[in-house]
Amino acid sequence: MFERPVQRLIDELSRLPGVGRKSAQRLAFHLLNVEEADARRLAGAIIDLREQTSFCSRCYNVTAGEECSICRDPRREPGYICVVERAQDIAVIERTREFAGQYHVLGGALSPIDGIGPSQLRIEELELRIEELRDRHRDNGAGTGESRIEIIIATNPTIEGDTTAMYLARRFKPFGVTVTRPASGLPVGGDMDYADEITLGRALADRREL
Amino acid sequence: MFERPVQRLIDELSRLPGVGRKSAQRLAFHLLNVEEADARRLAGAIIDLREQTSFCSRCYNVTAGEECSICRDPRREPGYICVVERAQDIAVIERTREFAGQYHVLGGALSPIDGIGPSQLRIEELELRIEELRDRHRDNGAGTGESRIEIIIATNPTIEGDTTAMYLARRFKPFGVTVTRPASGLPVGGDMDYADEITLGRALADRREL
Repeated sequence: MFERPVQRLIDELSRLPGVGRKSAQRLAFHLLNVEEADARRLAGAIIDLREQTSFCSRCYNVTAGEECSICRDPRREPGYICVVERAQDIAVIERTREFAGQYHVLGGALSPIDGIGPSQLRIEELELRIEELRDRHRDNGAGTGESRIEIIIATNPTIEGDTTAMYLARRFKPFGVTVTRPASGLPVGGDMDYADEITLGRALADRREL
Repeated sequence: MFERPVQRLIDELSRLPGVGRKSAQRLAFHLLNVEEADARRLAGAIIDLREQTSFCSRCYNVTAGEECSICRDPRREPGYICVVERAQDIAVIERTREFAGQYHVLGGALSPIDGIGPSQLRIEELELRIEELRDRHRDNGAGTGESRIEIIIATNPTIEGDTTAMYLARRFKPFGVTVTRPASGLPVGGDMDYADEITLGRALADRREL
């Protein structure tokens, strides 16, 4: 139906998540009609993304260098590690300005149905980081108040995310670290009427005294 | 928030129609996580689209050569010209297999509010094609049955598209050509209940005897 270069781009665009045949067609014709420099800038940005970024050797966040800007930042407390499924989750947590520790990107969540077990995620790497922290605290002498290690498991509040959190808690509690999970409950500013029963049930079970 | 190459790609993706900030972020991280070859293939397809295609010198359809495959096809009747707003509309009409003539891409529709007048569209070029056809018919001798020229104005059934159709009809009728417009009416397989009143009104006004 379309000339080959057009069809090829439609095919490539259709492979992107959330882009159907129709949107891919629309995008391809858009790129035919814009200034050539605009189309080239988009193509260049895709190439640069892959050539100029890699994953942080410590936490697996996206970085333009060897270690990411968060791991390099001396003001971030190394004793707090927030575990997330994907690198893009870091930006969401950073936006809250509630967390001043470091991160660890798992690369997904446990999902036996999809064949994703502990060895498919960066759990071994997390364990090494925890051991290293523990050794460092021990060398500095215990009881200085600096010895607290907390692993905050911010995987998605889904079955897979919850399973992963349970697994990590069981695995790392024997290391003498605190393992926590962000609260589930009613969204702030939301309407009680619209809360689903599971979220509302969790909110009631985790109720706090005022 | 994001590393520069990531932010740059998010910015470029956000410029695409129908792609918001959030989808742009999602796409950028997707392109970070796929095989590098996949990302390069997408970038390459964008570049090739611009380097290997241009617009047909006769009808302004997208083409990999000088003239598009429809204009080059000797089985297409040159006396029938279907006028569309954009090149992508051609594929929609071709899919019906109801039309065996040629096309003419206007490049938009008349819209005084957006400053789009007749000179912003390829109307001059259409006029030249009509004059050429008329001259050819005259040279072949009148009354051979081959002298029919029909301009089918398949602009969108919107105010702009209707205005453009009216304008073209007024402009080209004095050339002795037939100017038509596809019927508006109820969608086939649709439910009368869901028809909007303007479409239903048009369907009633254009009713056909059975």
